[in-house]
Amino acid sequence: MVTKEALNEFLSTQFKQSRCTVEEINAERAVIRYRITEADLRPGGTVSGPVMFLVADCALYVAILGRIGIVPLAVTTNMNINFLRKPAADRDIIGECRLIKLGKLLAIGEVLVYSDGQEEPVAHATGTYAIPPKRD
Amino acid sequence: MVTKEALNEFLSTQFKQSRCTVEEINAERAVIRYRITEADLRPGGTVSGPVMFLVADCALYVAILGRIGIVPLAVTTNMNINFLRKPAADRDIIGECRLIKLGKLLAIGEVLVYSDGQEEPVAHATGTYAIPPKRD
Amino acid sequence: MVTKEALNEFLSTQFKQSRCTVEEINAERAVIRYRITEADLRPGGTVSGPVMFLVADCALYVAILGRIGIVPLAVTTNMNINFLRKPAADRDIIGECRLIKLGKLLAIGEVLVYSDGQEEPVAHATGTYAIPPKRD
Amino acid sequence: MVTKEALNEFLSTQFKQSRCTVEEINAERAVIRYRITEADLRPGGTVSGPVMFLVADCALYVAILGRIGIVPLAVTTNMNINFLRKPAADRDIIGECRLIKLGKLLAIGEVLVYSDGQEEPVAHATGTYAIPPKRD
Repeated sequence: MVTKEALNEFLSTQFKQSRCTVEEINAERAVIRYRITEADLRPGGTVSGPVMFLVADCALYVAILGRIGIVPLAVTTNMNINFLRKPAADRDIIGECRLIKLGKLLAIGEVLVYSDGQEEPVAHATGTYAIPPKRD
Repeated sequence: MVTKEALNEFLSTQFKQSRCTVEEINAERAVIRYRITEADLRPGGTVSGPVMFLVADCALYVAILGRIGIVPLAVTTNMNINFLRKPAADRDIIGECRLIKLGKLLAIGEVLVYSDGQEEPVAHATGTYAIPPKRD
Repeated sequence: MVTKEALNEFLSTQFKQSRCTVEEINAERAVIRYRITEADLRPGGTVSGPVMFLVADCALYVAILGRIGIVPLAVTTNMNINFLRKPAADRDIIGECRLIKLGKLLAIGEVLVYSDGQEEPVAHATGTYAIPPKRD
Repeated sequence: MVTKEALNEFLSTQFKQSRCTVEEINAERAVIRYRITEADLRPGGTVSGPVMFLVADCALYVAILGRIGIVPLAVTTNMNINFLRKPAADRDIIGECRLIKLGKLLAIGEVLVYSDGQEEPVAHATGTYAIPPKRD
């Protein structure tokens, strides 16, 4: 497994504007935190849908890189997301990813998205990444 | 139909940070433009997935509001997006939405997402919005 | 909770051609079994995709009915399915559903589909049912 | 393009139980017909969801084979389907597929599903097939 520290180092240098940090990475799952700012909020005091999508996408990316090593060229090919409840405006967004399949060319995982500290998820996503072939 | 001007007015006051503007709205389709800035780019000179999701989501929202009137409480319940090609880093992102079904409670549409001026789409999405019941 | 026996009685009278039987139903999950016959097989000795879809759809239906009672008018509105591995031709198909959200109007669940006795799933699905409003 | 006759020949020999026939195949789209029988109906006089899934899956398969030639090993990897209206019980089901992307490894298309002769679609699907690499 790639360490949490190595993944955070990678995210911060590659995605300077990213506010995602890895909280946990192991064979079972990846957990990331997204720090909410004013710019992420929608009228009515809720977090926008694209932010929840971003968290789901990032959690899946981290889960895959944790298993196969840091491969910057992995790209999302499909993401299906269901929005379940209104997220809280004053809490970070947490994404928890479990991989369903890790193949040679495609990896598939599911992500539960939460408002930090709340029990019920605000969104559920299933996504696919294409993994670039190894160059020897 | 709600006019393009009314929709742009609504988007700019409700979503101050939005960079989406409506280019076309009629019974057939809605077209929106998203102005790309540095913050939207990923390493390797491409537009991030969450930006394409945002454009798909916004185009569907505009297509629905154009038909039913400006109802701020409509919310996305599901979005399925396929990423097809790498978007250009130096072109705006365009979203073209056609509604598939406009029911009383749910509206479903599909969106083709383009790099401005290019023929082949960079993403395709299908999404569902829940429409709040009318209060009389 | 509705009992396993009541659900099987309902499935057998309403869907005479159904080969789905409920194996387990509780607050956590629903498990169903689909008995494979010659007609379900594809060239190359595998089970067809529509059969896996049917199992996912049925497992979600059973999970919902187990919680809300037998409401024949609940209908699928969306299903997203990822096919992961080739199912075995000589084993029944098992669907295990966990509900993600049970709202008043919509219920969402995820289903893992297996070839009976094998550890790795052959498909993963996420689906939504619309629940008819209660008549008082 | 592969001809309609060659595709129908392939479907009838490979999938003996198939009731899908190709009605139209060209660079723009593929149209298939599914002959409804008693076994496809649900209580309340409607066609079951798995039948609509089967039609979407078959229409996409035919659209791809029409373009790349008859490659029996192409397999569905993802299908997302929205059910829009109740199909008629006494009409065949028609699937119309347009390809969105035809890549070397993946092909993506969308399918509108109709009750024969009716204007409004009963379902809309977007699906992905994995195409086996060419052996030279």
